[in-house]
Amino acid sequence: MGLGIAILGATGAVGREFLTILEQRGTEINELRLLASARSAGTWLPFRDEELAVKEIAADSFDGIDVALFSAGATSSRRWMPIARAAGARVVDNSSAFRMEPGVPLVIPEINANRIGDAPLIANPNCSTIIMNMAVWPLHRRHPIERIVVSTYQAASGAGYRAMQELHDQTRDVLDGQPAVPKILPHQAAFNLFSHDSKIDESGYNDEEIKMVHETRRIFDAPDLGISATCIRVPVLRAHSMSINLTFCEPLTEQQARAILESAPGVALADDRTSNRFPMPIDATGKDECLVGRIRRDISRPDGRGIELFVCGDQLRKGAALNAIQIAELLIRGKTKASVTT
Amino acid sequence: MGLGIAILGATGAVGREFLTILEQRGTEINELRLLASARSAGTWLPFRDEELAVKEIAADSFDGIDVALFSAGATSSRRWMPIARAAGARVVDNSSAFRMEPGVPLVIPEINANRIGDAPLIANPNCSTIIMNMAVWPLHRRHPIERIVVSTYQAASGAGYRAMQELHDQTRDVLDGQPAVPKILPHQAAFNLFSHDSKIDESGYNDEEIKMVHETRRIFDAPDLGISATCIRVPVLRAHSMSINLTFCEPLTEQQARAILESAPGVALADDRTSNRFPMPIDATGKDECLVGRIRRDISRPDGRGIELFVCGDQLRKGAALNAIQIAELLIRGKTKASVTT
Repeated sequence: MGLGIAILGATGAVGREFLTILEQRGTEINELRLLASARSAGTWLPFRDEELAVKEIAADSFDGIDVALFSAGATSSRRWMPIARAAGARVVDNSSAFRMEPGVPLVIPEINANRIGDAPLIANPNCSTIIMNMAVWPLHRRHPIERIVVSTYQAASGAGYRAMQELHDQTRDVLDGQPAVPKILPHQAAFNLFSHDSKIDESGYNDEEIKMVHETRRIFDAPDLGISATCIRVPVLRAHSMSINLTFCEPLTEQQARAILESAPGVALADDRTSNRFPMPIDATGKDECLVGRIRRDISRPDGRGIELFVCGDQLRKGAALNAIQIAELLIRGKTKASVTT
Repeated sequence: MGLGIAILGATGAVGREFLTILEQRGTEINELRLLASARSAGTWLPFRDEELAVKEIAADSFDGIDVALFSAGATSSRRWMPIARAAGARVVDNSSAFRMEPGVPLVIPEINANRIGDAPLIANPNCSTIIMNMAVWPLHRRHPIERIVVSTYQAASGAGYRAMQELHDQTRDVLDGQPAVPKILPHQAAFNLFSHDSKIDESGYNDEEIKMVHETRRIFDAPDLGISATCIRVPVLRAHSMSINLTFCEPLTEQQARAILESAPGVALADDRTSNRFPMPIDATGKDECLVGRIRRDISRPDGRGIELFVCGDQLRKGAALNAIQIAELLIRGKTKASVTT
């Protein structure tokens, strides 16, 4: 038994993470088809005890595929989605192409797996949206939130594999007294930080920030939730961090917030005031759970409606590949169940 | 003409910056006396066309000194302040020792130089407090602020010269595949970030965050101002960045905020949405001005009372040495004026 799974964008940072996670989770697979653009086709990638060839994406690439994981950017997703659909594959899309499209569920399984139903296409949210909401949703579900103010500390991985490589190589150049020459990222990454380089609209917010606002509202089904985000790229390789200030509709104690987060799925507390150990990218890297700490009552709000948090999650795992694979597993489970019952 | 100036802690990161700035500004000096603990005494430091020997601090170190700049930590400040005072020197103290002491002015010259008067001891605020308030004060002065929510991105320099060196050397170790061995900083600094390691009180806030709260209230003479800070150390060498969310008492437009910041002393706008260039540590390094950008109306507040900012300032300059030297120059000017009139 097992299903046909295709990965589009297999050679990218998220694509490679798909392979790692599928291997670690032992997902039952009949055929794993690795796909990429002509530029990256021909690469061989290790999976379980085999080496799999990455094939160039083509019109027949999805024949016989049950679930296709897309992670090759929005343009590629728009182009290949109809072809995958026509071949009968259900698509989990990691790009921003369909996230706000009515009828396309935007899913974080711990929050709204129930939206999947029999949708042929499911959108994976933006990485910052996922990581923030792993901590924010469990609180909001029990104690409605009025407003979120978030500042991010985003890793290079969010800009892809080559951005991670650039941070790595450029840091060595700078240490060697060489000039930093940004190619993938817009500014020097080594020992520097900068505002996320996505397009800025007339509101003054950039696209990454706007995604956090609209996607969160859609996932929470809370169209009026107030959210302000500031997205900053920092010289970290692959885990995003976030400083989150929450205003609740009613007062909430630090103890209530901690108790909820302690038992929240996909969350691990890292909140040790004595040893001064809180969420850190190096601790979140490679972990499925998002780390949450610095949980405290906001002292700027005498009304007791404020809670502060610091969150850290692996951008390539829960922020992208893991979340998509969790969705895929729900599709596979549905598929397996369906084929048994028919 | 010229005065006797002493620097206590001359070999530290801030101490060395004192020398650079005094040289750049051409401050009129009769004698510059460099002082340090026994451990660092004996070092030679370049100043103008000379090499100056760093002497071990002693009971007679401040004889004939007009202004003493202290930057050797709170314990050292508490010990040597009475001795400097007894010798007739006025002290500008960069440590936290006297910042909250009644009667000791806590001064950012652009904000409250008028508090200096004939005080024998003036306290230099915490670096994060100074950098934040270079942008926040000009707004608050014209349009009173109700609440500040700030998340910092603090450079290694804030933990001293050896912390900068550790970030530098440890990054090379990590690139070479060696383990990171934190010695000065509490956690791995290379390609990582972590909550500021100062002591955490029962409120859940750490000492650095509490400093930002209490010092800002004192400098602004606004004891009820609501402030919540999250202080994070990032792998940057010497400029601090901050994401600042402001709630004003009355609505304020983005244009009003920008116009005020454009003409604010010690502030330079870096707010180019078209080229996506905003405040960055590498641009702030070595600059006297604090860079301010990402100025925008907070979309999470429909009442129009919210403004978001991103600020970046050189921690060693305006965050420490420059601010202290600006205070010292005001003392010198007073002294010069006094000696002319008597």
